[in-house]
Amino acid sequence: MKIETKIAHFSSPLYLESGRILEPYEIAYETYGELNEDRSNVVLVCHALSGSHHAAGVYEGDRKAGWWDGLIGDGKAVDTTKYFVVCSNTIGSCFGSTGPMSDNYPSHEPYRLKFPVVTIKDMVRAQMQLLSHLGIYHVRAIIGGSMGGMQALQFAVDYPNFADEIISLAATYATRPWTIAFNKVAMEAIRKDPRFEHGNYERGAFKEEGLDGLAIGRIAGHISYLSPETMDKKFGRNYVNNDGLFELFGRYEVERYMEYNTANFSRMFDPLSYLYIVKAINTFNLSRGYDSLHDAISRIKAKVHLISFGTDYLFFPCEMEHIAKMMERNGQPFSYKEVESDYGHDAFLVELDKFEEDIRRVLS
Amino acid sequence: MKIETKIAHFSSPLYLESGRILEPYEIAYETYGELNEDRSNVVLVCHALSGSHHAAGVYEGDRKAGWWDGLIGDGKAVDTTKYFVVCSNTIGSCFGSTGPMSDNYPSHEPYRLKFPVVTIKDMVRAQMQLLSHLGIYHVRAIIGGSMGGMQALQFAVDYPNFADEIISLAATYATRPWTIAFNKVAMEAIRKDPRFEHGNYERGAFKEEGLDGLAIGRIAGHISYLSPETMDKKFGRNYVNNDGLFELFGRYEVERYMEYNTANFSRMFDPLSYLYIVKAINTFNLSRGYDSLHDAISRIKAKVHLISFGTDYLFFPCEMEHIAKMMERNGQPFSYKEVESDYGHDAFLVELDKFEEDIRRVLS
Repeated sequence: MKIETKIAHFSSPLYLESGRILEPYEIAYETYGELNEDRSNVVLVCHALSGSHHAAGVYEGDRKAGWWDGLIGDGKAVDTTKYFVVCSNTIGSCFGSTGPMSDNYPSHEPYRLKFPVVTIKDMVRAQMQLLSHLGIYHVRAIIGGSMGGMQALQFAVDYPNFADEIISLAATYATRPWTIAFNKVAMEAIRKDPRFEHGNYERGAFKEEGLDGLAIGRIAGHISYLSPETMDKKFGRNYVNNDGLFELFGRYEVERYMEYNTANFSRMFDPLSYLYIVKAINTFNLSRGYDSLHDAISRIKAKVHLISFGTDYLFFPCEMEHIAKMMERNGQPFSYKEVESDYGHDAFLVELDKFEEDIRRVLS
Repeated sequence: MKIETKIAHFSSPLYLESGRILEPYEIAYETYGELNEDRSNVVLVCHALSGSHHAAGVYEGDRKAGWWDGLIGDGKAVDTTKYFVVCSNTIGSCFGSTGPMSDNYPSHEPYRLKFPVVTIKDMVRAQMQLLSHLGIYHVRAIIGGSMGGMQALQFAVDYPNFADEIISLAATYATRPWTIAFNKVAMEAIRKDPRFEHGNYERGAFKEEGLDGLAIGRIAGHISYLSPETMDKKFGRNYVNNDGLFELFGRYEVERYMEYNTANFSRMFDPLSYLYIVKAINTFNLSRGYDSLHDAISRIKAKVHLISFGTDYLFFPCEMEHIAKMMERNGQPFSYKEVESDYGHDAFLVELDKFEEDIRRVLS
């Protein structure tokens, strides 16, 4: 199938949790499969911090498939011969939806630091607008991992009648200080980088040479996405071949991995977007706006499927379990599975074989 | 007692593991208690990454006590009415022993990046020189936590007849890629900071305004010294009072803690020293220079006491257990204790009540 990014334009305001307004705004999205006549076959997929609306398929002339291509496609767990799959870029991101480097209408100057803080709740509200724009008022399922899993849960709480099934992987009910601390490395490293210019850098400034601060922050990110066990298997104490053990800047393989991956990332991701999305993750708290977490969870009417990963050092299994136990006590329909994995938090992106059958079953 | 830092000068070369030579060199140290007549009451204390020779007591006119003051002193677990305690600043550090900002003899210019890479083995060898300079050829015990615990173990392996008892806390047999990755954040953040000037900054350049890169790297450090559980208890999701939740740079309490502690640190610790010591930690591997870890461990003649902490996310309990199991199989004298703690890696500095009786017993 031909994969195309579409842009939906909205001239009506998006009311944000902060009390501020985003107006106008755009949402970049992709769809896979065909919408059936009674519009009852929609699956919404939500992406994580560094992801985008490009969840599946390969662009013409491109080589790399979407970030969950192993899961979404004809005959796959999210079967596009049956389902109409929608994935959109979250507001605040830098892949086509309105974010801090978008025009601060009516000027043609970017918002930069004038962009309003957005939250997971806001991301969810924007997606509701998109779906309504597409004539979709109910979906079969909402699926996401990490920040995508937060969105799936937020949908379940804020719009109890909107989805039949919620599948949330490697997420939490509220971001813990441990994760906020990891994000702090990125926030400080970006802010303190002189080339960040307090947010006043030019568009495209980092296309050739990425922002060091973002690359440094991303090292902390990668630590939290892996686990000690993964790193042992993946790198061990192997040293880079041509580096000297007694050279100060000689590198272990894990260091080369960090350098390579983070340098690439800092060329393709906008640092302001990174700050805004990280802020959205930090402020995520399912109970905000409700009397308590219990109150928020009790609102849920969809069947919720929680999947955690044993070696996830960013959002620990106990966090998903906390939700599961609460739903159990409430007598709400749910399932909980802790996947044994050595891949840490990243397992939701790489160890698809460990949970694709669960997703297939939910959707069948 | 009056606490004084002494400096020992060495004009003979220190032969380093790298094949390079440090000559001349100095070692800053402190002693507490009195050396008895037959010199049989010596306890050597080894410090961690950010520590110094100032392990106990309070300097005249100062308020802050040494980093293990709760453990070392008259009537304390390391009882200075009985023992003569020696603690020295490791070579490469910035508190008086020869390090990268020391004169590159015979010039009066600092070594900077010309300083040789030093290892835990080298730090141990330098301490052997210091003790020999003090007329001490055998010690009752060697105690240290984290990098200090690495040194204690390295003493046990390299100089099997030197100490009766080895007490190693919160350490490992070889640094794993997980820890190297945390250190990588600091290495990159320091190197990429323009004020680091590729190591060519002036002495005292960061006394007023610390190096941002070091502060950023130190955030990653603090993450690894704490644990998710500690952070929950210490900070929860508390937000700084006068910061707005929907301000991009509004802060959670955990963020304020990181800012405050790391900014202070970056004014008092030399960034080049940080790079060199972190490198020493990364390259730590008890088996290097021997046929295998088993071969290295088998050399040990001292009684080894291993203490790990349940929530240590830097050097996990399983790493100390690995050594314990090996010694058990070998029939070597050892003890192993995993302390239940919510303080993470830092427990070896703050939860003294959880292990001071063990140390008292070993020394009694």
